[in-house]
Amino acid sequence: MGNVYVEEDVGLMDITTLGLGIGACSGVMEMRAKESLTLSGCAPVKEILQHLGLAFSFDVHEGEAVGAGERILQCIGNAKALHQAWKVSQNLLEHLSGVASYTKALVQEAKRGNADVEVVTTRKHFPGTKKMMLTAVLSGGASPHRLGLYDSVLVFAQHRVFLGDKEALARHFWELKQKFLEKKVAVEVENFQEALYFARIGADILQCEKMGEKELKRCVELKEKFPHVLISATGGINVNNAQATAACGVDLLVTSSPYFAKPKDVKVTMQPKEKR
Amino acid sequence: MGNVYVEEDVGLMDITTLGLGIGACSGVMEMRAKESLTLSGCAPVKEILQHLGLAFSFDVHEGEAVGAGERILQCIGNAKALHQAWKVSQNLLEHLSGVASYTKALVQEAKRGNADVEVVTTRKHFPGTKKMMLTAVLSGGASPHRLGLYDSVLVFAQHRVFLGDKEALARHFWELKQKFLEKKVAVEVENFQEALYFARIGADILQCEKMGEKELKRCVELKEKFPHVLISATGGINVNNAQATAACGVDLLVTSSPYFAKPKDVKVTMQPKEKR
Amino acid sequence: MGNVYVEEDVGLMDITTLGLGIGACSGVMEMRAKESLTLSGCAPVKEILQHLGLAFSFDVHEGEAVGAGERILQCIGNAKALHQAWKVSQNLLEHLSGVASYTKALVQEAKRGNADVEVVTTRKHFPGTKKMMLTAVLSGGASPHRLGLYDSVLVFAQHRVFLGDKEALARHFWELKQKFLEKKVAVEVENFQEALYFARIGADILQCEKMGEKELKRCVELKEKFPHVLISATGGINVNNAQATAACGVDLLVTSSPYFAKPKDVKVTMQPKEKR
Amino acid sequence: MGNVYVEEDVGLMDITTLGLGIGACSGVMEMRAKESLTLSGCAPVKEILQHLGLAFSFDVHEGEAVGAGERILQCIGNAKALHQAWKVSQNLLEHLSGVASYTKALVQEAKRGNADVEVVTTRKHFPGTKKMMLTAVLSGGASPHRLGLYDSVLVFAQHRVFLGDKEALARHFWELKQKFLEKKVAVEVENFQEALYFARIGADILQCEKMGEKELKRCVELKEKFPHVLISATGGINVNNAQATAACGVDLLVTSSPYFAKPKDVKVTMQPKEKR
Amino acid sequence: MGNVYVEEDVGLMDITTLGLGIGACSGVMEMRAKESLTLSGCAPVKEILQHLGLAFSFDVHEGEAVGAGERILQCIGNAKALHQAWKVSQNLLEHLSGVASYTKALVQEAKRGNADVEVVTTRKHFPGTKKMMLTAVLSGGASPHRLGLYDSVLVFAQHRVFLGDKEALARHFWELKQKFLEKKVAVEVENFQEALYFARIGADILQCEKMGEKELKRCVELKEKFPHVLISATGGINVNNAQATAACGVDLLVTSSPYFAKPKDVKVTMQPKEKR
Amino acid sequence: MGNVYVEEDVGLMDITTLGLGIGACSGVMEMRAKESLTLSGCAPVKEILQHLGLAFSFDVHEGEAVGAGERILQCIGNAKALHQAWKVSQNLLEHLSGVASYTKALVQEAKRGNADVEVVTTRKHFPGTKKMMLTAVLSGGASPHRLGLYDSVLVFAQHRVFLGDKEALARHFWELKQKFLEKKVAVEVENFQEALYFARIGADILQCEKMGEKELKRCVELKEKFPHVLISATGGINVNNAQATAACGVDLLVTSSPYFAKPKDVKVTMQPKEKR
Repeated sequence: MGNVYVEEDVGLMDITTLGLGIGACSGVMEMRAKESLTLSGCAPVKEILQHLGLAFSFDVHEGEAVGAGERILQCIGNAKALHQAWKVSQNLLEHLSGVASYTKALVQEAKRGNADVEVVTTRKHFPGTKKMMLTAVLSGGASPHRLGLYDSVLVFAQHRVFLGDKEALARHFWELKQKFLEKKVAVEVENFQEALYFARIGADILQCEKMGEKELKRCVELKEKFPHVLISATGGINVNNAQATAACGVDLLVTSSPYFAKPKDVKVTMQPKEKR
Repeated sequence: MGNVYVEEDVGLMDITTLGLGIGACSGVMEMRAKESLTLSGCAPVKEILQHLGLAFSFDVHEGEAVGAGERILQCIGNAKALHQAWKVSQNLLEHLSGVASYTKALVQEAKRGNADVEVVTTRKHFPGTKKMMLTAVLSGGASPHRLGLYDSVLVFAQHRVFLGDKEALARHFWELKQKFLEKKVAVEVENFQEALYFARIGADILQCEKMGEKELKRCVELKEKFPHVLISATGGINVNNAQATAACGVDLLVTSSPYFAKPKDVKVTMQPKEKR
Repeated sequence: MGNVYVEEDVGLMDITTLGLGIGACSGVMEMRAKESLTLSGCAPVKEILQHLGLAFSFDVHEGEAVGAGERILQCIGNAKALHQAWKVSQNLLEHLSGVASYTKALVQEAKRGNADVEVVTTRKHFPGTKKMMLTAVLSGGASPHRLGLYDSVLVFAQHRVFLGDKEALARHFWELKQKFLEKKVAVEVENFQEALYFARIGADILQCEKMGEKELKRCVELKEKFPHVLISATGGINVNNAQATAACGVDLLVTSSPYFAKPKDVKVTMQPKEKR
Repeated sequence: MGNVYVEEDVGLMDITTLGLGIGACSGVMEMRAKESLTLSGCAPVKEILQHLGLAFSFDVHEGEAVGAGERILQCIGNAKALHQAWKVSQNLLEHLSGVASYTKALVQEAKRGNADVEVVTTRKHFPGTKKMMLTAVLSGGASPHRLGLYDSVLVFAQHRVFLGDKEALARHFWELKQKFLEKKVAVEVENFQEALYFARIGADILQCEKMGEKELKRCVELKEKFPHVLISATGGINVNNAQATAACGVDLLVTSSPYFAKPKDVKVTMQPKEKR
Repeated sequence: MGNVYVEEDVGLMDITTLGLGIGACSGVMEMRAKESLTLSGCAPVKEILQHLGLAFSFDVHEGEAVGAGERILQCIGNAKALHQAWKVSQNLLEHLSGVASYTKALVQEAKRGNADVEVVTTRKHFPGTKKMMLTAVLSGGASPHRLGLYDSVLVFAQHRVFLGDKEALARHFWELKQKFLEKKVAVEVENFQEALYFARIGADILQCEKMGEKELKRCVELKEKFPHVLISATGGINVNNAQATAACGVDLLVTSSPYFAKPKDVKVTMQPKEKR
Repeated sequence: MGNVYVEEDVGLMDITTLGLGIGACSGVMEMRAKESLTLSGCAPVKEILQHLGLAFSFDVHEGEAVGAGERILQCIGNAKALHQAWKVSQNLLEHLSGVASYTKALVQEAKRGNADVEVVTTRKHFPGTKKMMLTAVLSGGASPHRLGLYDSVLVFAQHRVFLGDKEALARHFWELKQKFLEKKVAVEVENFQEALYFARIGADILQCEKMGEKELKRCVELKEKFPHVLISATGGINVNNAQATAACGVDLLVTSSPYFAKPKDVKVTMQPKEKR
């Protein structure tokens, strides 16, 4: 019935505010960016503020740029609610704006290498944080690679070990395509030979895992012969190598790096509010 | 009824495994450290493996050191369950071992500066991850600073703005101490003057926020006059400055840095299992 | 903590069994098919029986055929648990075997019309029953069309009304394809002209809503010019018209009809068990 | 925290609406009956619309008649929310209005046979749907037979097998009546002899399972000698045989047939809304 | 996923056991009755012990008598789990055995006044504790009066104020009986006149609220004229007045007094277990 | 999604109100104290009333005194909602005001013995009721002793049995203090010798279990030598002995007695509301 993040942080009661006897005082809380950032985390923070009965207004919205020192948010309410909202809201904005800001930088780098490349992010966020992480990634200009095991078909070596020889592999692969005819079928490949093999038996997407630029370019050349096939690069893609990798001509960069971005600092201040 | 992390990743079904028709094949999955690490995440991974009906054994336990290439874990079961367990378990071990390993390094640095210093970690983890994060921190040799607003008394400037003049402040402070007589009362202070003031009116812990070493040492000297008072340092403490800060003579280092540690790489392999 | 279906049916206690004082008697419960069927519902029934501490064995498994009079399941335990398990388990097996059996018949009809056609089922089951309904559909030999709004891209007229003129439509359509590059993009079309238009701007799947056979065949002919495009038929597909519709050459039949199939009758008997 | 039906259908995000970039457009959604029906499902649909922040008004209310083509409901809001609300709301109205409409027809048939008969519906709905199904049944003019095992006493053959000989049966039956003195005690009987026996030992309700009309009438005649006893008929009661069964003079018809009623078609349209 | 009572008491961790470093020590915990009691609370305590992975055996079972000093329960496991189980299990056994023991004494008193009287307990337990409270009441030999508003029909003055004049009241009352034909209809009455009125219009149970013995006896005499009517007494029934009230000839005593019974003392001891 | 207490009491529907057909009538419900009390339970009752869509106003607030006959609360809404709110709200106010009122009396008694004593209440409330019980205790003027095992360090004999000889005990005790340096460490002691021992090795709080007044006073005298040590008395503290125990000079009284306080009577009336 409550808000799960507030409950985690506040538990049964905020004993400092209670013990000081200030819970009923009216106050104003402001949050400001200490450094420039792309804002994320607005939706869960709104839920927290509403849950706690605070009046609030955002000066900036999800996905927008904020300059150093600019105000993000102002809240008005009693000190009890302000103190319950404070740290958990700040944490969400700091972490998620870190993710969105990193994503934005990474997308810019990638587009410098290849204007048509699409950056997509993996399932390797911290378990339990998917919805917020993907929102931050979308706010930074990338898309989700796959939401989980349920929404896309991606064949790994860890599947292929169960499939026996090449003939059996090809037969199972065809059945897979037929069973999920409305899906594109992706395969993770580790070298050009694997890429060629799977292009031939009908893969829609070749996901090239940790290849060097030379091998990656050979895979990209497969598109001449298999024009409907997409080439994606994965494994260690980050803001430093995105441009060079994109420049190899791949259609997609698949990355987890935004999830570990350093949080952006947000400053929180409170002031008592005059009673009129 | 299910496991929340498996549900997030697997959803209604794993369509790749289903479409390939390999779900019923027996297999073995192994996880190995790619680099040396302090292991964490064992409890949630055990819950996942049990939930999925996999047989498993850990070669190393929560909080133990693992060398590069050493095996952490082996699981046996059908391919359907192995594929559901794979990525979410790997994610947990990688992220949480990252936190534990960083914590361990940080504690070692701190002890080099002052063998009696205690490292404690804050509430600034990503919301929703507290239990796992604190377990990782304990496995790395630190303790929790405070679990939330409910278990300890810590007075911030954001409380004091509601308390009026010095006299009112002192009176409320006394009432706070009396109401939670069984708790130590901590105060976050920004300079020596504040520290001195709160030591005088009975604070048990002075939490020195972002002070330089010189000012920090002046605060530490207050312990001569107020022998029951503890001095803690906070604000930007990390593995690079822990030794120097500890060497100022503080009792505690309060830090959030382990929560943002880079994940440790864990390699996952699968093999089909002979039917006997 | 409990089982949601048992809780719905049993609530705080089974007052008849309690009032008769028979709860501790040992007994055997059997379930038999009254008519031939394709079995479904095994997974939730297993959870119920385990939750209630009953020993049980299934004579037939999920997706297998059962003849009239054949035993599906035997349970042993005390009368309290048997009476708690009885009706809710019977309900699940009856309803879900109805769905699986109908699906199987529908797939057979469709394959008669076109051996390569794939039958897929929609989101129009009763809300809250998706997981069990899709399992029954898979057990009957069909696949899910889409799990929900999150796993596939399908453009309806209800989207297009927001997109303005043809030029704006084409531009948004291109952006959609680019943003979810790893997905096939489907469009629901109501006539040949719409189908042609969307084939030209790059649709991967044309979902033909309630077309007559003649118009459907015209759409199928588009595949000559657009060989990667799939044609699916939807709207009122059922066991009576599946063969004829499939025979038009479509790749997919999209249907909701299995969800409303008549339940299959399952007979439940109990007997006291001799104490040894 | 969310709405369970919306979550089932929408999951993490509606990727079509997101990819088309139309989520923020304002629109109007209307739902109209394609055929005449008795409306049900209003309560869960209201919860969905409120949860999604849509403005809405119902033209008809729970349990009221709607003619073919008449509008049921109008919603206003952004396209993101409209598309999330669409199918799940339509599904609920279609299925539950199917149940209510069938119930209404069945009650009318029954009353033609016997104006004082009461139609009551069983526990044999699809597990997990009880609350909505019973609301639909009440809206159609019937009542619940029993909510579950917790609210009424009903002795089946499956109980009696545990009770030994006639003497033991009578003794346990008396204890049952005494323990739940405030309840009527019902017994399911398969023939007149059983009915007579249980009337003699004090049953309040004789539930006649799958009897022919002749035997049913003999049971009804027991009311002359046992004026407080109620006679109910069960087993295969539906809209086709309700009148004839009711005409036998029974007090109650116990039926599951409304739960499998064919859904009623509801048409959904959307239009963009002019910005003023 | 956890046990709600353990979570309430233990939260994120037991810091005393953790800080002392004794969590992994093996130990034995015993619980003994300090005074004679009727045992209740076994089911939730078993769930707790199982959840914590403790081996355990009960020396006495739900509803059985325990003498002062007798052992109820022994548990074996590590100190971490024993300390998590200790207080919450003790609390449950103490409170619920208090309820069961009081109920038993109350039933004995009542039977002394009238061997055929039935004691039933109300909805006035502390909200959230119904299942455990009713189990304790059953273990003490009483039955539930009504589980809630859903399982029985009981007309209060607070209903009658909405029903207008006598004629309207009688009509609504008849409709109520007809709509829930399978239920007995109870009415709370405050004096003989009300009792007579409702007996005449067909009440099945007259619940006499806080009547003196004389008036109660007049109501009991109504049974001569209305032999199917039950008379129950309610309002302040406890162990001191149960015999006298029962002796008035009522069929039922309706009471809330067991819920407030003083807890029974249970002594808990722990010992380290030799490693073999 | 609903309110857990309403759901427990109302379940699927209130069949009396439904059967009488009065659900849509407008009405007013009032609650009045039958005896003077300190009010508690306002927060959960507000949640219930809001959940049910009732308009309401409290005449008195949490923790305030109410005289016999004074109105606490007025609600306006339809009879369906009023009847759903009635008993569960009454129960909460009665039980929790009982706890708050007893606490207030106990605190007054204690302060008579020693104006500086603090009354704190234990974990021995009925499991599942902690939040409401502690709110009532705070409203009565006491504080929580400890919220659970997670927020304070308290060493029992049940811990010490695992710690071996005195030397090992002292070493573990020191480690405990160091690991949770920001906490006061409490020890439960049974006599003066134990108290002295733990004062010497650094306990912050000596919790004296069931000592006589003479021994308690000896422990209090330890404060002369160990001025930072707090002395608390526990075991059987109640309104009858609080003054005398406090007069021994202890800092804290630790008690469970308020949780078993007799509920305070609250009278509930309803009236139909004129339609304007």
